[in-house]
Amino acid sequence: MTTSVDMLPPLQGVRVVDLTRVLSGPFCSMLLGDMGAEVIKIESPSGDPVRGQGHHKNGFSWYFAGFNRNKKSVVLDLYSDEGRSDLARLIKTADVLVENFRPGVLAKMGFSQERLDELNPRLVVASVNGFGSKGPYTDRPAFDFIAQAMSGFMSVNGPEGEAPLRAAQPVTDLVAGLYTAFGVVSALHGRNRDGRGQAVETSMVNGVLSMMAYLASEHFVTGENPQRTGNDHPLVAPYGLYDTADGQIAIAPSNDQVLQRLLTEIGLAELLEDPRFDSNAKRFERRDELHGILDAALASDTQENWIIRLNRAGVPTGKIQTLKDVFDDPQIKAQEMSIDVPHGDRGDVRMLGFPVKLSRTPCEVRLPAPELGEHTEEVLSALRDG
Amino acid sequence: MTTSVDMLPPLQGVRVVDLTRVLSGPFCSMLLGDMGAEVIKIESPSGDPVRGQGHHKNGFSWYFAGFNRNKKSVVLDLYSDEGRSDLARLIKTADVLVENFRPGVLAKMGFSQERLDELNPRLVVASVNGFGSKGPYTDRPAFDFIAQAMSGFMSVNGPEGEAPLRAAQPVTDLVAGLYTAFGVVSALHGRNRDGRGQAVETSMVNGVLSMMAYLASEHFVTGENPQRTGNDHPLVAPYGLYDTADGQIAIAPSNDQVLQRLLTEIGLAELLEDPRFDSNAKRFERRDELHGILDAALASDTQENWIIRLNRAGVPTGKIQTLKDVFDDPQIKAQEMSIDVPHGDRGDVRMLGFPVKLSRTPCEVRLPAPELGEHTEEVLSALRDG
Repeated sequence: MTTSVDMLPPLQGVRVVDLTRVLSGPFCSMLLGDMGAEVIKIESPSGDPVRGQGHHKNGFSWYFAGFNRNKKSVVLDLYSDEGRSDLARLIKTADVLVENFRPGVLAKMGFSQERLDELNPRLVVASVNGFGSKGPYTDRPAFDFIAQAMSGFMSVNGPEGEAPLRAAQPVTDLVAGLYTAFGVVSALHGRNRDGRGQAVETSMVNGVLSMMAYLASEHFVTGENPQRTGNDHPLVAPYGLYDTADGQIAIAPSNDQVLQRLLTEIGLAELLEDPRFDSNAKRFERRDELHGILDAALASDTQENWIIRLNRAGVPTGKIQTLKDVFDDPQIKAQEMSIDVPHGDRGDVRMLGFPVKLSRTPCEVRLPAPELGEHTEEVLSALRDG
Repeated sequence: MTTSVDMLPPLQGVRVVDLTRVLSGPFCSMLLGDMGAEVIKIESPSGDPVRGQGHHKNGFSWYFAGFNRNKKSVVLDLYSDEGRSDLARLIKTADVLVENFRPGVLAKMGFSQERLDELNPRLVVASVNGFGSKGPYTDRPAFDFIAQAMSGFMSVNGPEGEAPLRAAQPVTDLVAGLYTAFGVVSALHGRNRDGRGQAVETSMVNGVLSMMAYLASEHFVTGENPQRTGNDHPLVAPYGLYDTADGQIAIAPSNDQVLQRLLTEIGLAELLEDPRFDSNAKRFERRDELHGILDAALASDTQENWIIRLNRAGVPTGKIQTLKDVFDDPQIKAQEMSIDVPHGDRGDVRMLGFPVKLSRTPCEVRLPAPELGEHTEEVLSALRDG
């Protein structure tokens, strides 16, 4: 039996009551489900709005499916006494509660932190929200685009001299969901010692603000705002997109050693001794001229060949891929980053694979995304019997 | 004594041997340190290259400081037998090893997975890398810009009709580091049951690919590549940046109910009955005209007032903030997202605060970023005595 215990997923035995809908919260609870937690998604009788969003196939939203694998669906009407009483009984059996309401809404529904402590002092209560539960913006409605704007994320993105730009990806939802999942598992680990739960919270603004990394450090030390530089590096040249015989390549020589390798491989080894280009400051000042010289040298071979040659020489090199390119890429295939998941009558749904690879207990789809209320009877009758 | 046990951070007692340098790995180990793990950063005699990067104050890199709080620094020369033997003894005492070498490099240094299992079967071995340890690109050098290009992340970012654009933030490093930290704590949780460690890995490409969210779902179901649409929504209007009396606001009405609230608040309630604008399809088709109508209505009040009024009405609204704006923002202050950390003779270093808020055991800076080798004697002598 040792072998089978060894194969159990890391969060096996962790029960998550999931009150979230749409994106940030469902992403968080899916991450916990992918690690083996039992996630009970509580839906209103009309269901998570994402069930109706995006393109459908066989009457099913692939957007919904991609964010709700490894979950059970239980319908509760939390406006009714019965629904709230079922939720209370469920909370008593849970290890984690995840919600992405505005701060204060859960308390208004009758589940203040005090009530939750009373119901279950071991409960880890996780909240993903827009701005955090302290401060003047707590009650504001949250949305990814707004969080990208408010957090400084947009201020540094965009072509040089042009307007700030959002990322098309809902990065603030997803980063907050991921941080919250990390916080939940950390709190569960701490609970193993002292037996007590606690509240865990990440906001969309705080999460994505933490992605400012050295842009924030440099701002703190210099007092300056970082500038938009498009695809060029703000301080280093060469760096960016260059033309080959048949397409662009992205090159990022991160230090002088890598730059030397690049120039040697493309037949410009002597350039670093040229008095016009013998320091980064000079190269940066003449970066347009330098760009032309590199483009000319790179015209001697193809995109694919340069990617192979330069990587082999130790120079990080790649190309801009569309999503079609990405999922045709042999590396992405080897990493199983798209998976086809049977969904009964709905057919196979293709979705993203697992970004975290565990060697002994790899993540897997134990449950496809549920039909609305698919597990209501199963979950509630077990509560009543219990 | 119950009280004091209750106040211990969640990862108290977890020892992390940290072989990482630069960005993705140090971010991962800092997250573990922020949650209370003892992080022992192994540095070569010349130190993490980031010690020499970015602006310095009092001879100290604030970039380094911002990514290396809550760590001890131990200098080992892993090219020497003595260094490798010290590392082996350290590994025996550890719960987690984190590395961000290219796959295979650690094994070449004498620490294959087999050797690690032998030294410490309970060890969680975490790897943050560029492309993953399986597949044709495993040996390629990794860099954020390249991972943004290869993952599809850039393909959807940029103004409509213009070239793909990277995000200025090193998102691929940070997202991979965060996923890995989540994987590590999950594996530690699983280890509580079966006593065995395992390998945990996230690549920069896989991590950021998982951020494609519904863009990926829509691609899978339709077969189409998502298009670049700048700050506009690809399907919904109104949505985006609008002019007020004195500056732009970002508005994101996520559904018809929110749109109704927006139009009512700006005095255009009748617009939804206008046959030119009574469906999203029509609004999207006439979005330039609609944009002009909204700009005209919004000219009646200021940016700050509209942000207050619209949020109060339940419409997610904000403005694009620079980093200076962000750190002056009362919400960001209430959330303590910048903190000043004393660093002895180096003075106070300002850095980003903690995005994950824990109610009972909040993250704190227990240790400022270390001087190179500051803890070599302390850590190694404890090993020798042990």
